[in-house]
Amino acid sequence: MSNERTDTLDNLVIRMHPRDNVAVAVNDIPQGHECVPGVTTNQAIPAGHKVALADIPRGGAVIRYGAVIGFATDMIRRGDWVHENALRLPEPPALEDMPWGMAAPALPRAPLRTFEGYPAAGGGFTGTRNLLAIHTTVQCVAGVVNLAVERIRREMLPRYPHVEGVVPVTHAYGCGVALDTPGAAIPLRTLRNLVRHPNFGGEVMVVGLGCEPLSAGLLLDEADNTPDNVITLQEEHGFDAMVTAILRMAEQKLARLNKRRRQTLPLSHLMIGLQCGGSDAFSGITATPVAGYAADLLVEAGGTVLFSEVTEVRDAVHLIAGRCVDAECRDRLAQEMRWYDNYLRGGDVDRSANPSPGNKQGGLSNIVEKTLGAIAKSGTAPIVDVLSPGERPTRRGVIFAATPASDFVCGPCQLASGITLQVFMTGRGTPYGLAAAPVIKVSSRTALKQQWGDLIDFDAGPAATGGMTIAQLGESLFHQIVDVASGRVRPAAERYGIHNDLCLFNPAPIT
Amino acid sequence: MSNERTDTLDNLVIRMHPRDNVAVAVNDIPQGHECVPGVTTNQAIPAGHKVALADIPRGGAVIRYGAVIGFATDMIRRGDWVHENALRLPEPPALEDMPWGMAAPALPRAPLRTFEGYPAAGGGFTGTRNLLAIHTTVQCVAGVVNLAVERIRREMLPRYPHVEGVVPVTHAYGCGVALDTPGAAIPLRTLRNLVRHPNFGGEVMVVGLGCEPLSAGLLLDEADNTPDNVITLQEEHGFDAMVTAILRMAEQKLARLNKRRRQTLPLSHLMIGLQCGGSDAFSGITATPVAGYAADLLVEAGGTVLFSEVTEVRDAVHLIAGRCVDAECRDRLAQEMRWYDNYLRGGDVDRSANPSPGNKQGGLSNIVEKTLGAIAKSGTAPIVDVLSPGERPTRRGVIFAATPASDFVCGPCQLASGITLQVFMTGRGTPYGLAAAPVIKVSSRTALKQQWGDLIDFDAGPAATGGMTIAQLGESLFHQIVDVASGRVRPAAERYGIHNDLCLFNPAPIT
Repeated sequence: MSNERTDTLDNLVIRMHPRDNVAVAVNDIPQGHECVPGVTTNQAIPAGHKVALADIPRGGAVIRYGAVIGFATDMIRRGDWVHENALRLPEPPALEDMPWGMAAPALPRAPLRTFEGYPAAGGGFTGTRNLLAIHTTVQCVAGVVNLAVERIRREMLPRYPHVEGVVPVTHAYGCGVALDTPGAAIPLRTLRNLVRHPNFGGEVMVVGLGCEPLSAGLLLDEADNTPDNVITLQEEHGFDAMVTAILRMAEQKLARLNKRRRQTLPLSHLMIGLQCGGSDAFSGITATPVAGYAADLLVEAGGTVLFSEVTEVRDAVHLIAGRCVDAECRDRLAQEMRWYDNYLRGGDVDRSANPSPGNKQGGLSNIVEKTLGAIAKSGTAPIVDVLSPGERPTRRGVIFAATPASDFVCGPCQLASGITLQVFMTGRGTPYGLAAAPVIKVSSRTALKQQWGDLIDFDAGPAATGGMTIAQLGESLFHQIVDVASGRVRPAAERYGIHNDLCLFNPAPIT
Repeated sequence: MSNERTDTLDNLVIRMHPRDNVAVAVNDIPQGHECVPGVTTNQAIPAGHKVALADIPRGGAVIRYGAVIGFATDMIRRGDWVHENALRLPEPPALEDMPWGMAAPALPRAPLRTFEGYPAAGGGFTGTRNLLAIHTTVQCVAGVVNLAVERIRREMLPRYPHVEGVVPVTHAYGCGVALDTPGAAIPLRTLRNLVRHPNFGGEVMVVGLGCEPLSAGLLLDEADNTPDNVITLQEEHGFDAMVTAILRMAEQKLARLNKRRRQTLPLSHLMIGLQCGGSDAFSGITATPVAGYAADLLVEAGGTVLFSEVTEVRDAVHLIAGRCVDAECRDRLAQEMRWYDNYLRGGDVDRSANPSPGNKQGGLSNIVEKTLGAIAKSGTAPIVDVLSPGERPTRRGVIFAATPASDFVCGPCQLASGITLQVFMTGRGTPYGLAAAPVIKVSSRTALKQQWGDLIDFDAGPAATGGMTIAQLGESLFHQIVDVASGRVRPAAERYGIHNDLCLFNPAPIT
């Protein structure tokens, strides 16, 4: 896509690409209204829904974002409402021999190239926050850890003003699972990589039970698996002793973390994640192209941007493949898609489960249309790497991390990959937040920003209805990303302490 | 089993059944020691391990708990250490045409027949606690709900002294899932049944987001799906308004709950759950037979007792089938076992993953031996019903609820089935607790009770080393169950507020 990505027609409808034969209503349009010169609505068109700009014969292609989003189930006349049932879903793209290495457009120049971050001990990506993490090997210890964390926050944290929070890394894994089954690799990798998250400052603190299959030794490198870093509850003498042991270890870690200071660092040290949740028809018109522009700027400055959500990429995988920098990257993409196809088939799930009812009410007819809007958030830069869920990258630039689309499962996977900030685009609105990294919530519509004023950090709505361009808004979002990464701005979820649970992706059975 | 279930021979070894040809060492026994008249150890026998009481020919059955736990891989001589490698694992019992309706022994007479509970609005099982539950449709709202619950506990609960707590029913489900896939029935049923849990007093309070596939309408009966009971965050005007709405609704529910009072009720109104976690070699000698005796007393008084954990029942399923009261119950048992066999096979998991290396070091040779110990907790009464995970029973008595063995997944399933109290047996020790029902933690060894004095509620260890009988301890546990159910005693996890997360059993893929 060029930087002139959208084409607002009389402020009534938006066409995303010159080839499109449908456009999206910005607001409700009554029946009999000429929404574009020569196109009069045959029915009322709800906001976010599509109106046909031309006659489309039965079986003809319905085109949005310059791509086929479906085939007409019946004759569609110019001015018709093109609703969910007017479209037949195309076959998903084949995964064999996808072309790669297509020429990428020049990236826009970033307006600045540094931020204030916490340097990582062993090099690599940099922290945006200075947090004490208390990792756990198994859910059994979660109740005790949560009670200890309440006390650490209340009694100890005020004495360590340079530490920005305490994160209990609790989860539903660690027992009742077979660690030697193929699916176990994902949660194991996720938990191992979370220990090394840049926002945790290299301090290691683990609470285990003592009889769990996922022992601290499987979570940690051998050098880290020491009594200075690991508490085993079965070795303690009761509840009070457990809490005392956790508080004592936390105090030592807090004292060290409290010495850390931000430094001016190149943006190449920053890795952020992009995610959509509660999307509507405007997400792909405003929020995702705006985020995509900000991603382009960040990548131009040397930064790294993860995007994810396999089921919301699968139907446009050929477009992602085309942006891959080499055949290996393309092959990993195909492999991750195949794995997910099989995983869903094993559970008798097909892709028609997505979009959600809310998405459809918002005007997204099917997964193809949702996907084309979703991938816009990755911008236009070449894709340098593809990651399995929870894996850490070895390259810098745009990276596809193959995670579930579920917001609260994608988030922990991206955290394990090492993102230290997430940009979260929403149309319907969700109060989503992560404990381990700040989340910037971007609304697709100004109406949502108006309604959820204290929860939405950035409004991309003006790209549709406020006379601002994608580039203007994208640059503004870029600045906000840098401000949040630098600790100058705390987004709403961080200020209020709205944290989702750390829902691990575990594709294997529970025993 | 008779009520004289164990037979401590000179306090050195324990034989569980008169037919057994092995007994278990209570403590380490040196070589050359006459541990039973006529049985002198040929090797040192580690505590918890088995010694042969008779010669067993190669291929002969090794019998413990009156059942075959394996076949001798070589000649075993009287006085030999019968270690893991001396046994060949029997095939898992076939599920076809299992005999049912075997004669049950007479149950011991319960010493009392009533308790003090909160009567259920629509009849049925009775609450043991008076709690405000805030249900959620989707994980997205969990962060906001948790913050609101903190404020309710701090600011409102002290004004409602007859309400014993606030339970946020948060979970990892509700979005990123296909609700029409077969596996979805389990988490859907679990969440629906949790709304109706007896400890929540018939008050319905649900917080939803607004765009999630699992809408409040799928969680609630139509009559309950009203604005008095359901808050939709996407309809609120920001974070402060969300919290205010939750607090306002909570206040109304608290006012009504605060009027509830305990009444003297027959024990037939009580349903408890039994679960094992962190088992050791003594679990099947002390904790589970003691719990089994208490279960017999409760059932004799008309009460209902759930036991669970498919993978720890599978290898003795023929014994469970034998206790089924009718062919339908037996057939449901076989069906649940088949479902789980397939579920595990689909994830490349087999039963040899259990017992753990720690279990084996402790003397549990194989899954059959572990299973025979585990099922002892269900006592001896006929099995009147078999439930799918999270399903509610329609009969009273002993019921097998087919859940995973994972403690923190079994617990929520049993809660959904309606238990209002859980007895949790542990050998190694776990600080496990449920927010929605009190949990009585029973230690299998006195050493654990001594080490975790403030966490273990009941010590079954004296059955092995304290000169007490299973019947004496079982009756004592029965009294403690009645005291806890009546609110006279609060177990450790409840006093400290140690609550595990509500980890739902979701066998289906994440999209």
